[in-house]
Amino acid sequence: MRAGPSQEEIRRHNLGALLRHVHLSGPTSRAELTSRMGLNRSTIMALTADLTTAGLVREELPRETGRAGRPSLVVRPESARVYVFALDVGVDRLVAARVGLGGTILDRRETVRRRGPFSLEEVAGPLAGFVRQMHRKTRPDTVCVGAAAAFSGGVARQDGVVRFGPNMGSVDVPFGEEMSRRLGLGLPVAVGNDANLAAMAEHLRGVGAGCRDLVYLHGDVGVGGGVIVNGTLLGGHQGFGGEVGHMVVNPDGRPCGCGSHGCLEAEVGERALLEAAGRFGPQVGRDAVRAVVAAADRGDIVAQAALNRVGDWLGLGVANLVNVFNPEMVVFGGMLREIYLGSAAQVRSRLTVDALGPAREHLRLRTSALGDDATLVGAAELAFTQVLADPLEVLARAGS
Amino acid sequence: MRAGPSQEEIRRHNLGALLRHVHLSGPTSRAELTSRMGLNRSTIMALTADLTTAGLVREELPRETGRAGRPSLVVRPESARVYVFALDVGVDRLVAARVGLGGTILDRRETVRRRGPFSLEEVAGPLAGFVRQMHRKTRPDTVCVGAAAAFSGGVARQDGVVRFGPNMGSVDVPFGEEMSRRLGLGLPVAVGNDANLAAMAEHLRGVGAGCRDLVYLHGDVGVGGGVIVNGTLLGGHQGFGGEVGHMVVNPDGRPCGCGSHGCLEAEVGERALLEAAGRFGPQVGRDAVRAVVAAADRGDIVAQAALNRVGDWLGLGVANLVNVFNPEMVVFGGMLREIYLGSAAQVRSRLTVDALGPAREHLRLRTSALGDDATLVGAAELAFTQVLADPLEVLARAGS
Repeated sequence: MRAGPSQEEIRRHNLGALLRHVHLSGPTSRAELTSRMGLNRSTIMALTADLTTAGLVREELPRETGRAGRPSLVVRPESARVYVFALDVGVDRLVAARVGLGGTILDRRETVRRRGPFSLEEVAGPLAGFVRQMHRKTRPDTVCVGAAAAFSGGVARQDGVVRFGPNMGSVDVPFGEEMSRRLGLGLPVAVGNDANLAAMAEHLRGVGAGCRDLVYLHGDVGVGGGVIVNGTLLGGHQGFGGEVGHMVVNPDGRPCGCGSHGCLEAEVGERALLEAAGRFGPQVGRDAVRAVVAAADRGDIVAQAALNRVGDWLGLGVANLVNVFNPEMVVFGGMLREIYLGSAAQVRSRLTVDALGPAREHLRLRTSALGDDATLVGAAELAFTQVLADPLEVLARAGS
Repeated sequence: MRAGPSQEEIRRHNLGALLRHVHLSGPTSRAELTSRMGLNRSTIMALTADLTTAGLVREELPRETGRAGRPSLVVRPESARVYVFALDVGVDRLVAARVGLGGTILDRRETVRRRGPFSLEEVAGPLAGFVRQMHRKTRPDTVCVGAAAAFSGGVARQDGVVRFGPNMGSVDVPFGEEMSRRLGLGLPVAVGNDANLAAMAEHLRGVGAGCRDLVYLHGDVGVGGGVIVNGTLLGGHQGFGGEVGHMVVNPDGRPCGCGSHGCLEAEVGERALLEAAGRFGPQVGRDAVRAVVAAADRGDIVAQAALNRVGDWLGLGVANLVNVFNPEMVVFGGMLREIYLGSAAQVRSRLTVDALGPAREHLRLRTSALGDDATLVGAAELAFTQVLADPLEVLARAGS
């Protein structure tokens, strides 16, 4: 039970809200901010002035509007000056990026990762190197306000420790702490589950913008998920919520890496598709999945049957999630984007049978708009959390 | 994006918060309110004075504390004066109650309901009669501040229309509107899904008090659910969220009333248990379920096998929900209370195999503390929503 906020808390809240608005929506006129935020003109002016002085936004003429008359000034995030580092630890790749306020990717480094057991050195070393390279290239007047990583595994909310992951079994890696030490920027590195962060990214900047109840399904070598419930990411008691890949859909089904059988991941993951298509071998990953979908398109009967089989289980999984969450949208991302596009009819037909009518009548099925960058964009948003919550305080700390 | 609140909004918020506190926690000293709400003594005094003048609370000496010295006054909800009507439309019964602020059931009427197709007349008639009887018995200085019904079916959030239910198929019943008309109290009747409301009741006043992430499973003739995510009831896009009974756990399984196969409801519902025990016949309902559990306790091998079978599917369903929600607690209510108590070992053994280790390491499995009253208590809480949000406004309207 919370008491009402003080005037200073209200001001901080409003500063954060204004910054968040231009961060997510881009350059916005004062008039529009006034109407969107429900504050009066003088308050918006004062807030904008504070943020401008801090170097977080600036006011400028809008790009050509095509309308006659004097254009009003727009408030624009200082994307080139204020930035975060976003990291993505995927199964097949490592990515690091410098992302400006407003979500602009300013710089980026990527390397292929060999599949296999996780080792901290093999992951943290290259990522820290990328960050150092990018940091050296920044101008002196820029300021880093946060850092975060998307990790393909289960991440405890309390301490950011990675507890489990595909090909990793049960582990206990204090990944954020280790990255923070290696980056040496004096900043903590927040860590989140990759599918959770991708869900947030699609909700904030992707196909699910404006959608408050959304289920995001992410296919990598495994299947992860992120669920937005009434505009907020479902975390659960310890932060492991949204592990929809380990929902059992076929109790007599294929063995899963988690020790169970017939998990969604076991039935619709990369390996399930490639094996059903008779193509499981040295060639795995996204290209191998695309090859199956392309073969099915060309009329390859085995590939078609494999996609149908996988689409059937995918549809059952989606139906279960529709009954449980009654989402407005289900988004297919990562490798599941390809699989959904190749088996949409199968997925929809399962939905019709297995999802309750009223729960699916307004449902939209969509593919990720951010594509393979969804996890990275999500990590950047996680890194921006603090500065958007309390802009002046974070900037003062970062600048000191 | 919301602007900061005005002083008047803060006062209303605090009035509601104080009232909510004594409503849920019972008589509380001013000193404790001061510390719990993080407000200073004079603010608490002013808020208490306002609520006292409105007749919502009163201050009085506490019951014997056993401690020496002058006891400090406690703030107590005016349970006998301020009340709501709570209705419960179950499959086998209809209940109406008058519930005082603070959650005290002041009066109560109940009748058996014959199973079968839903008819508005057969349900609304008796309930309206009960409410009129109870209303006639109230003293003139009492005030009714709300009314709500728990309905064993899917209820659209937007308009409170019941869209589907067990034994009902797809329907479109404006139940709340109809009840409001029949009660003639000049009050709207809010309607919620029974399992959703029971989940809220267990979260606020039952075994899940203090627990912010909770999955409640409710067995009636069907299986419903309610999920509390970070302290808030999961509604989903249209309010149909939490229909965990229609999560498919066994795709080759028993046909379900919804048209699918192997839904949790089809595998662990009353009929599944009674058929597996060779006892499906004219005797159905809670007593028939209890008889199976009792027989298994006495060593009846057929009853034991039936409970094991049902417990196995129940465990698989719970494991799926643990992976998806990472709850702190799973609560078994309604008829599932008996089934869980009779098959706990089976449920736990499934959980160990099918739920991810980190997601279940802090998990508690519990049975409903409110028992068969959980849905009714939940309906009462729904009915109290308005007065707790804006006490003086609602009371002024109710008194006028």
